[in-house]
Amino acid sequence: MIKTTNSPHVHWQALPPTSMTLNGGMWSQRQAINRQISLRHGYNMLESAGNFHDLRLAAGLIEGTYRGPLFMDSDLYKWLEAVAWEIANNPDDELQRMMDETVELIEAAQTPEGYLNSFYQVAEPQRRWVNLKDGHELYCFGHLAHAAVAHHRVTGSDRLLNVAKRFADYIGSVFGPGKRPVTDGHPESEMALIELYRETGERRFLDLALFILEQRGQNLLGANQNAGYYQDRVPIKQSTIVEGHAVRALYLASGVTDAYIETGDQAWLNSVHAQWHDFTSGKMFITGGAGSRHDGESFGQAYELPNDRCYCETCAAIASVLWNWRMLLTTGEGRFADLIERTLYNGFLSGVSLDGRGFFYVNPLMSRGGYTRPEWHGCACCPPNVMRMLSSITHYFATADDSGLQIHQYAPGKLKSGKIGLRIETDFPWQGVVKFTVNESPAEAWALKLRVPAWSDFTTLRINGQAIDLPSVNQGYVTIDRTWNPGDSLEICFAISPRLTEAHPRIDPTRGSLTIERGPLVYCLEQIDSTANIADVEIDPAAPLQTEWQPDVMGGTMFVKVGGYAVDTSDWGDTLYRTSGKQEVKKQPVQLTAVPYQLWSNRDSGAMRVWIPKSK
Amino acid sequence: MIKTTNSPHVHWQALPPTSMTLNGGMWSQRQAINRQISLRHGYNMLESAGNFHDLRLAAGLIEGTYRGPLFMDSDLYKWLEAVAWEIANNPDDELQRMMDETVELIEAAQTPEGYLNSFYQVAEPQRRWVNLKDGHELYCFGHLAHAAVAHHRVTGSDRLLNVAKRFADYIGSVFGPGKRPVTDGHPESEMALIELYRETGERRFLDLALFILEQRGQNLLGANQNAGYYQDRVPIKQSTIVEGHAVRALYLASGVTDAYIETGDQAWLNSVHAQWHDFTSGKMFITGGAGSRHDGESFGQAYELPNDRCYCETCAAIASVLWNWRMLLTTGEGRFADLIERTLYNGFLSGVSLDGRGFFYVNPLMSRGGYTRPEWHGCACCPPNVMRMLSSITHYFATADDSGLQIHQYAPGKLKSGKIGLRIETDFPWQGVVKFTVNESPAEAWALKLRVPAWSDFTTLRINGQAIDLPSVNQGYVTIDRTWNPGDSLEICFAISPRLTEAHPRIDPTRGSLTIERGPLVYCLEQIDSTANIADVEIDPAAPLQTEWQPDVMGGTMFVKVGGYAVDTSDWGDTLYRTSGKQEVKKQPVQLTAVPYQLWSNRDSGAMRVWIPKSK
Repeated sequence: MIKTTNSPHVHWQALPPTSMTLNGGMWSQRQAINRQISLRHGYNMLESAGNFHDLRLAAGLIEGTYRGPLFMDSDLYKWLEAVAWEIANNPDDELQRMMDETVELIEAAQTPEGYLNSFYQVAEPQRRWVNLKDGHELYCFGHLAHAAVAHHRVTGSDRLLNVAKRFADYIGSVFGPGKRPVTDGHPESEMALIELYRETGERRFLDLALFILEQRGQNLLGANQNAGYYQDRVPIKQSTIVEGHAVRALYLASGVTDAYIETGDQAWLNSVHAQWHDFTSGKMFITGGAGSRHDGESFGQAYELPNDRCYCETCAAIASVLWNWRMLLTTGEGRFADLIERTLYNGFLSGVSLDGRGFFYVNPLMSRGGYTRPEWHGCACCPPNVMRMLSSITHYFATADDSGLQIHQYAPGKLKSGKIGLRIETDFPWQGVVKFTVNESPAEAWALKLRVPAWSDFTTLRINGQAIDLPSVNQGYVTIDRTWNPGDSLEICFAISPRLTEAHPRIDPTRGSLTIERGPLVYCLEQIDSTANIADVEIDPAAPLQTEWQPDVMGGTMFVKVGGYAVDTSDWGDTLYRTSGKQEVKKQPVQLTAVPYQLWSNRDSGAMRVWIPKSK
Repeated sequence: MIKTTNSPHVHWQALPPTSMTLNGGMWSQRQAINRQISLRHGYNMLESAGNFHDLRLAAGLIEGTYRGPLFMDSDLYKWLEAVAWEIANNPDDELQRMMDETVELIEAAQTPEGYLNSFYQVAEPQRRWVNLKDGHELYCFGHLAHAAVAHHRVTGSDRLLNVAKRFADYIGSVFGPGKRPVTDGHPESEMALIELYRETGERRFLDLALFILEQRGQNLLGANQNAGYYQDRVPIKQSTIVEGHAVRALYLASGVTDAYIETGDQAWLNSVHAQWHDFTSGKMFITGGAGSRHDGESFGQAYELPNDRCYCETCAAIASVLWNWRMLLTTGEGRFADLIERTLYNGFLSGVSLDGRGFFYVNPLMSRGGYTRPEWHGCACCPPNVMRMLSSITHYFATADDSGLQIHQYAPGKLKSGKIGLRIETDFPWQGVVKFTVNESPAEAWALKLRVPAWSDFTTLRINGQAIDLPSVNQGYVTIDRTWNPGDSLEICFAISPRLTEAHPRIDPTRGSLTIERGPLVYCLEQIDSTANIADVEIDPAAPLQTEWQPDVMGGTMFVKVGGYAVDTSDWGDTLYRTSGKQEVKKQPVQLTAVPYQLWSNRDSGAMRVWIPKSK
């Protein structure tokens, strides 16, 4: 969650952590599981994987050997941030105790001069700041700072904030104008330093972030041929494409957008606009997923969007939400909220199992079987990243400005900002109706802005039960500007019928195929729902799409059913290639059953596909 | 080239190096460039990259630091093998001098006990045989042994053979029953040891090869989760799939087939038959290319065959030819020769530029532009591998048995085996007619077997100008068994009209697409031949395919032209996904011009595609 109260270049203001509470629905369910299961599971995993152990070594509390990859601290910081956001709205003694003891441990591990990184303190003390390319030191600092800001913002305590400030000041004593130049191999510290600036008001943190951003693209990393992987090929202000490691690229873009928000330097904004265009016009999966290649966990070329071997790291989906949120705040354009919606409901939510104990690292759009969500990973960046996104999810739902409130994502609950209080009732995303009831309102008129998702091709509005003409949609939003009285209600209804979606014909593996979407949800076929082998089915584009609510499957799920065919591929025998046009295609009508992509691999680990070939 | 004279389990005998000489045509052209340009270019590159330097360090002739990756010796050995095969038929003073000085250098570098590896002698002397997983020591030995066999077979000198034998005996003193067990991370030594056995008749080399093969799959490498990459997941005799690093998998399969050829142990043959089925029914590109993933340079899952990100390493194509040749020799089944043909004319030959100075490592089936063949590589396994394949190419064209001769690949030249001498005239692969004239013949009847490629759906035969009915094709061959007199001629004519080929519908990126083949050649579109953007074209499956011989383009090339369409994709704007069925597809008729895939990227580095979407 970011704080834009004093940010000069935002269109809308982000709301504080306690502004919105959920009451029922998909996000509330997921948040409850995150609270009840995942955060405690995470604590146990951090203990068994060695993350706590490593900090205890650094603190001198125990003796032993460093365990795990060199960025172990960052996983713990992300989990800590998740706990902080969680208890903002749901105080919990156990989580509070876990948080307190972790803060104490982190304090104890910090060196007198302010440095803090268990790997370099314990395993390689002589290599501090030696390997900026792959050492993840500033990256780990960044996650510490984010956790510290969350802890301070939620609890008011400055204990962890002081740790982060001391570390930041130590970094500033090493790197900066007239000192060492610096580019970090894994961006993250940029947005963290800017958030630290926002939280403390201390300008030197912003200056350090800007210094770090400005150094990039001068080959300080020495990555040479591989500079693109590290977003170090050109200076950021000359960068017009997303390239290299997807999470790094999108964390960096988030930091660059933050830099614009605080400085107004148009060159930062121009760069991220160009990158966003490059991403969404050529390198984005329909789930919002980012990263086309396992090789380098990286973006590919434009239109290189494989179904089976896409990477779509869960962290990249999260990074995209962070970036699009900053773009939305600074521009007020609904396309960024549309993409947040696409990403949260699909490429992000697929990253965690319904039971809160399993996490995907890679989120393919097609599986030939065998994908299950492990309970943790050797490189465990994703699980605690999911946790912090879920515990802060309401942050992305609404904003405010002097004219009133803006609603970006729809979920049932209560929203309070200044003198305005709203109750929101909806079964979104299963149903398209969202009802707002004014609980509190100032006497003067104010405007409620509602995002009309690009997918809703017919949207209706009622105020106090009376249908009114939909105001014109401007940059993705309708504005209802009036005097509101407590008890007033507004209902907006989006067209949420299932639809068939096609992909740009330059994308090889989806050509001639369709997928099903319904509202914000991308659907997929899972083998468990089909008697035909889903590797051999086609979808009939003329067949009606039917919905079927199944209350007992996966906590309540809307299935979509549609006619199609099972193609008999047995005539291919063992051959992969044959002269065309000599064989007749034999196929049988079948009914296809689709489930939301976010839910795949929750029942078994059978085959799955998002894109389905279209029958002629 | 392998020698099967004493091999108990071959169906047909491989011929000695001087049995066939080429006279004109595609292979003769390529061989001449290999001789005149590539082999000398290779010598210079091995000098400038440090391969000679490293051996000089090992020999104590100079002082300095080891250069390059740890398998540098193997590149040099492959080049040396190439030179040896080359001078078998084309004595050349300069190449002879280069070979002699290289042999002398290798002799000088060998340690007194017989060990020879410049990396471990110079850079890491304390790590000999420590890192069998990634150290490439047996791999380098294998290429030394292959070079030594070639040198001995061609020159009769035992100088290099003795080096290889001493090294092999040293290896046998370290590893073996009652000594250390061994699995090598990069297979190669297995087939090399068996060839050393064939050349020397000394059984201990075969026994060592069998020992190495039998250890595999017991996790001696300790690769654990990554065992598949090293083909170490299960014992070979239980292995039924091709998996992991493609070159390693196919070198290993070659060695396993050799093991069967020498021992007759059916379990080896069963395994490679199963692997071959797995390869050709799910993991092979239409070019014969192998390796679906950059990640691990490896095979993927069945039907995971991307156009743009396939790996198709040139070395993997070569490895596949080596393997299929051994399968052909032991089974006598034409499907293996068919695949050799497919691989040599497409996935192999694309690996080298027409000027003999450029080499692809990766051979994609689609390029969005930017692919050029570098003159050498940091990991330079492919260039000298191409050289040894080209200089020994005639080895794969014919075999003999007691009944007569078998012709597997068609090229103009002279063939001599025992009392039989043939002159072969053909413009294959540009034309389908091949004429054999008997120069010498024993008095008694003998059989000429000719492979009828699976793609030839109409084949005719004339003897001494008289059309005769085509005998039945058995396992891919027709047999003409008669008394031959000098001057007798036989003409076989294959149906070489261009054809449209489709791929198995389970392969995502080729679904709904076609490619053009003609005879053994796979065709592709290159942007340089098209005014329309080839990313946006479709092929009309009903349009006639027309050929056009262009004598002045790339040394003489058969173009194929066919009608199609240029699709206007401008209505997509910047979007990647849209609701289906709302837009009309606009397209203009265009003529498509296709060139043999082997020749792509010889004129410029523009876009290329093998598979073309089919218009409705």
